[in-house]
Amino acid sequence: MLQTPPALPGMPEDEIDTPALLLDLDAFERNLDTMAALLAPTGARLRAHAKTHKSATIARLQAERAGAVGQCVQKVGEAEALIWGGIGDVIVTNEVVGREKLARLFGLTRLARVSVCVDDPVQIALLEGAAEATGGRIEALVEIDVGMERCGIAPGPPAVALAERIAGSRHLVFGGLQAYHGRAQHLRRAEERQAAIAEAAEATRRTVEQLRQRGLVCRVVGGAGTGTFALEAASGIWNEIQAGSFCFMDADYARNLEADGSPVSTFRHALFVLATVISTPRPGLAVLDVGHKGVAVDCGLPLVWQMPDVRYVGASDEHGKLVWEGGDRRLAIGQKLRLIPGHCDPTVDRYDWYVGVRGGRVESVFPVDARGAMR
Amino acid sequence: MLQTPPALPGMPEDEIDTPALLLDLDAFERNLDTMAALLAPTGARLRAHAKTHKSATIARLQAERAGAVGQCVQKVGEAEALIWGGIGDVIVTNEVVGREKLARLFGLTRLARVSVCVDDPVQIALLEGAAEATGGRIEALVEIDVGMERCGIAPGPPAVALAERIAGSRHLVFGGLQAYHGRAQHLRRAEERQAAIAEAAEATRRTVEQLRQRGLVCRVVGGAGTGTFALEAASGIWNEIQAGSFCFMDADYARNLEADGSPVSTFRHALFVLATVISTPRPGLAVLDVGHKGVAVDCGLPLVWQMPDVRYVGASDEHGKLVWEGGDRRLAIGQKLRLIPGHCDPTVDRYDWYVGVRGGRVESVFPVDARGAMR
Repeated sequence: MLQTPPALPGMPEDEIDTPALLLDLDAFERNLDTMAALLAPTGARLRAHAKTHKSATIARLQAERAGAVGQCVQKVGEAEALIWGGIGDVIVTNEVVGREKLARLFGLTRLARVSVCVDDPVQIALLEGAAEATGGRIEALVEIDVGMERCGIAPGPPAVALAERIAGSRHLVFGGLQAYHGRAQHLRRAEERQAAIAEAAEATRRTVEQLRQRGLVCRVVGGAGTGTFALEAASGIWNEIQAGSFCFMDADYARNLEADGSPVSTFRHALFVLATVISTPRPGLAVLDVGHKGVAVDCGLPLVWQMPDVRYVGASDEHGKLVWEGGDRRLAIGQKLRLIPGHCDPTVDRYDWYVGVRGGRVESVFPVDARGAMR
Repeated sequence: MLQTPPALPGMPEDEIDTPALLLDLDAFERNLDTMAALLAPTGARLRAHAKTHKSATIARLQAERAGAVGQCVQKVGEAEALIWGGIGDVIVTNEVVGREKLARLFGLTRLARVSVCVDDPVQIALLEGAAEATGGRIEALVEIDVGMERCGIAPGPPAVALAERIAGSRHLVFGGLQAYHGRAQHLRRAEERQAAIAEAAEATRRTVEQLRQRGLVCRVVGGAGTGTFALEAASGIWNEIQAGSFCFMDADYARNLEADGSPVSTFRHALFVLATVISTPRPGLAVLDVGHKGVAVDCGLPLVWQMPDVRYVGASDEHGKLVWEGGDRRLAIGQKLRLIPGHCDPTVDRYDWYVGVRGGRVESVFPVDARGAMR
């Protein structure tokens, strides 16, 4: 059962039913402008990651306002939601395994430009089988492990051998490299991030060069996230930047530090969960209607927007506990406040609707098209 | 967009598309039988908590097979999903605040027996206002804090005063007490759980007695969860048991200990997430298509079913890393395996469909009716 929208355009923010996923449109647009301005001098293209936003509407805004050339996704279901919503160029930055999923993936290739990753000959064989069954073709990128220690074949000769196998297959086209260093994104110190991406850059550069020597050209060398994209973009090696969180900015990314030790401030918090105080059982304690079902806690608890002395200290399924020093009763039953999620990606995935707000009013309501699209 | 079902009845388990939410029907039914047998001699009624399962189908099975007299929910949206699915008696074990939610709550009172909790005169005033606006009546329970330290007024005279205010209101009916000690559920040692519930029992008994002296009868004295329900049921004080997880049993509850120090084994694991291996990048490592978007990690990482030496050690959005000792390649790309969620309630909430399996085959597919029903 799809949930009903929690708001109507024109409504004051304080009348939005809660919990609700709020998008501060001024901050969001500013984040898009910032990314476009930072990438312009590097020549690297923006291909934003839709695992963060899961919305064809946001993908279109990223194309129109920030020049995004397409989107990344992790799942076929996310690709479907975007392509059905008008996005014409999607890379599945992941391995796709399973008969039903592969049939759906090849179906999408008839509607849009679609690429997929492989890190093993087994996946190439599965793609070839699906191509035979559907009569389709698809572009495949080789995912290399540049420090993520998750999926990905070793850079250099193993990656080149896999690329040659793609190029020599009947139904696949070699498209380039997927070289994402996820673990580097949340290294807190700037020097740590620089060192990690320098190492990833060397491995990627070497692999691109070895591929070139075999006559294999990388249309795409993709990677980078919100924590490190400036490094990849400046390297001259990556040509597509796959940052996702930059447009929303969560509490976890805001804990990264610049080289001078100050917190990063490139992007502004644009995504919030609006919550209501439902109980004030004693002084110094208030209980919200948002627990860990409504705001992801995998990267830490949420922060309370513009109330730095009020701390969200405990999330149960549907309750959040707020405490503060002083023992007064500063929050009242019925009061609404914004939470800054610890991690935007899984928080978005809990909601069916975005509520776009500007100047204290609801401007637009639009769907989280790929909510729950894990397959 | 609602997700499509990942399976068809009759299909072998190994053909189910992943990630999928699996319900092992034999284990589930055995858990219902166990609960019914344990409660029968105590006289306490089962009112299972639907925040765990969010399914009218499961609620009906709990009524038919385990004699559940009704269901508990945390949110109005959960109550709607159950009542629209045929459940006739629902307690919202929570405070409901907000104009739209209260209108919906009173709408439900025309379709089923519905009760709600209060812990403050402010909520009584809000309920009275909504009753005036809709022309309805509703039963209200006083939520008392018996150790949970979340919502709830103090037991004894403060609770009695609130009950008298309900009884003296125009549109509310006093229904009893909500006395849930959530923090006690996961105290690992049996003595700790016994001590916590003994204290909660004394506070609840005293409050019930003081209410009786004022002529206020508790139709419902509700509380208890999967970790402590035997204690509340045996106390003679609580008459309704609100356990939720017992029917599924997750990895976190399985870490509770009996008095002799052995792990609790009252209920069997019945809920799983089916996952597929998508990459085996090096010996001793496999990557699954299920990360923290597909299995909740708020109470710890999932376990791998029947593979105790394979450990799920890292969850990103859509990937799970499995490692094991020995450095062999025991898992293959395409292989499917079951995960035992760390916490069943939020895991269920990520899915649109249950896949009921028995004897290695899909028997039934039915919806998670209240998925995402946070309002």
